[in-house]
Amino acid sequence: MELKGYRFSAVEAAIKKPGRLDLGLIFSEAPASVAAVFTTNQVQAAPVLISRARAKNGSCRALLVNSGNANACTGEQGMADALDCGRRTAESLGLPDDELLIASTGVIGQPLPMERFRKGIQPLVDGLAVGTLDDLARAIMTTDTFEKIERRRGEAAGVGYCVEGVAKGAGMIQPNMATMLSFLVTDADVDPAFLRSAFAESVDGSFNAITVDGDTSTNDTALIMANGAAGNPCIKAGTPEGEAFVALLHDVLLSLAKKIVKDGEGATKFVELTVTGAASNADAKKAALSVANSLLVKTAFFGQDANWGRIITAVGYSGVQMDQRLVEIRFDEVLMVVNGVFAGGDAEAAGTEVLKQKEFKVTIDLRIGAGRAVVYTSDLSYDYVRINADYRT
Amino acid sequence: MELKGYRFSAVEAAIKKPGRLDLGLIFSEAPASVAAVFTTNQVQAAPVLISRARAKNGSCRALLVNSGNANACTGEQGMADALDCGRRTAESLGLPDDELLIASTGVIGQPLPMERFRKGIQPLVDGLAVGTLDDLARAIMTTDTFEKIERRRGEAAGVGYCVEGVAKGAGMIQPNMATMLSFLVTDADVDPAFLRSAFAESVDGSFNAITVDGDTSTNDTALIMANGAAGNPCIKAGTPEGEAFVALLHDVLLSLAKKIVKDGEGATKFVELTVTGAASNADAKKAALSVANSLLVKTAFFGQDANWGRIITAVGYSGVQMDQRLVEIRFDEVLMVVNGVFAGGDAEAAGTEVLKQKEFKVTIDLRIGAGRAVVYTSDLSYDYVRINADYRT
Repeated sequence: MELKGYRFSAVEAAIKKPGRLDLGLIFSEAPASVAAVFTTNQVQAAPVLISRARAKNGSCRALLVNSGNANACTGEQGMADALDCGRRTAESLGLPDDELLIASTGVIGQPLPMERFRKGIQPLVDGLAVGTLDDLARAIMTTDTFEKIERRRGEAAGVGYCVEGVAKGAGMIQPNMATMLSFLVTDADVDPAFLRSAFAESVDGSFNAITVDGDTSTNDTALIMANGAAGNPCIKAGTPEGEAFVALLHDVLLSLAKKIVKDGEGATKFVELTVTGAASNADAKKAALSVANSLLVKTAFFGQDANWGRIITAVGYSGVQMDQRLVEIRFDEVLMVVNGVFAGGDAEAAGTEVLKQKEFKVTIDLRIGAGRAVVYTSDLSYDYVRINADYRT
Repeated sequence: MELKGYRFSAVEAAIKKPGRLDLGLIFSEAPASVAAVFTTNQVQAAPVLISRARAKNGSCRALLVNSGNANACTGEQGMADALDCGRRTAESLGLPDDELLIASTGVIGQPLPMERFRKGIQPLVDGLAVGTLDDLARAIMTTDTFEKIERRRGEAAGVGYCVEGVAKGAGMIQPNMATMLSFLVTDADVDPAFLRSAFAESVDGSFNAITVDGDTSTNDTALIMANGAAGNPCIKAGTPEGEAFVALLHDVLLSLAKKIVKDGEGATKFVELTVTGAASNADAKKAALSVANSLLVKTAFFGQDANWGRIITAVGYSGVQMDQRLVEIRFDEVLMVVNGVFAGGDAEAAGTEVLKQKEFKVTIDLRIGAGRAVVYTSDLSYDYVRINADYRT
């Protein structure tokens, strides 16, 4: 079963430098419902401002994206440039301006290289005849070291449909979708209001649960288009089909989110960090993010040092309700801390073995309530510093 | 003029490893007023719990401190150990238990090596005959690369007095006094209530305005003892003598705080970061700390990359009131950003020159109000990662 009713394209426009795909396009053959979430940073790039307004219409036909330049902090010129690129692309596709969304990622504060961008638009539109979603996945990469793409198949009332998506990530992933782009497409027919609520909820448990370095960006955008080309009966909330769709959506988004963390700048470890027993789910998430963002915790992970003291310290300054005398900490199944003190026995050696793995779990039980949250994070390595000290050069 | 009425001592007890001073003692020949502030982390080491309670008495005679072990997350045993060490020291000094305060710094979660600690106490007390404040400054160092000590002289109604102090810092310095200890002594006679308010206010503008890695610790303690041995008329609030004393105190604390940042783990840059034009002073401090703690900003400083986009981004996600179209950013005197966009001209080259210095200023003007704050921070280097990946080994 193939995804129906979408075409993709990517070309090299040398936005930042030549030698790589950096312009991408998604085109839906029919009007598609759209649900989108954007950065919560108060400093927002021109494409975010434009797409946020256009996504409110609830439907669109196309998405134009570039890497290599964020078109952020570029003022009125940046807004004019983004509108100009969008208008030229929409025109070439035979669409009204506002049926095309725009996204950008890359360096902040430099004007778009408009001549090169414009020159790329016609080849980009022509490329829809032959392009693939894989091409798009490559075109949105910046410091990413591998492309991130997920494909799932579902069924509604006997009619098969597809949910497919791409993402870019690397540094600056937390909380609330930092420096990441993700674009999903489905050929399912989905009730627009249900699509919006299902997407927002799934983003919360996926992209909003990952952190690489605690920074949040000016350009984060995640969206899904649903064009109904599969021909299924419309999927609605509160039905078995609706539940199945949400599960599929969540699976795609969480898989993409995990790939973003695994490709965190310089990351050598992938850590699933769970806080349980908190006073509330919000407290659990706050504590989990405090630990996940602690430089001391992240460097200890890199050093494979079972330094649980830094973990309980980061819970302590997170501001959540806690009693240090109750806290339990596990590395995978190894109990490291009981009642706030070292568990003793062979926990040090066993815990160190856990941290030698490329992937492991850290579970913190505050033992005061039923609040629970899971976040995903990476370690902090020499390479993170190298990459980010050199990023613009 | 010499500091009157205090004696100091430091010995090697091999708390963590042999070869360095790691036990220290301050002794006042007469009862001293004491003002102290402690970590706001909910996870607090045994010595913090003990000293917080004892400092409430408003006076003390002595302070016992060890490095190499934080005695944090050590449960009831840790509390019993701290009380035991304190009692033995007080006894040897001929003092009631509660006239001695205790502080510890070092690795979290390991029990104090009690046999070695106890063995060090009598030599420590004996050492008061010959010890100096410099010895104490060395005994509290952990990953610090140099000792931090400041001495000032003041005068009240014609009588000279001294304010002297030591600090230890390195990593984990923010906000609100992370992994730092600082002990000040003055032989001035100071009104106890005034001493408390003056000290709290001075700490706020010094130790609470520095950040190295955004973590806050379980053991932070800053205190001042005032024993009146100088024989001055008591210094009170609202007098010229009071103002002069506050200025002196602030100077000592800020100088120590700056030394802590300069000795930040792996630091190669010292940055004075000012936010002006914020809606409130609180907003200004929030925005400044957000920038100072951004890994992307800190690695850009390390890379000497005039990447102002990361700075405005960090202001954007700090949550303070702002309008990106108004923001101005300066590196020293070089205007980098005007109205939220790049200032153009030779700002890139000139800004890069500023960042090549070991010390420079970053000023962010939000241009919406009168709020202002200054924080001091360092960059993030390979060495930070190396030090903290290896800290326990």
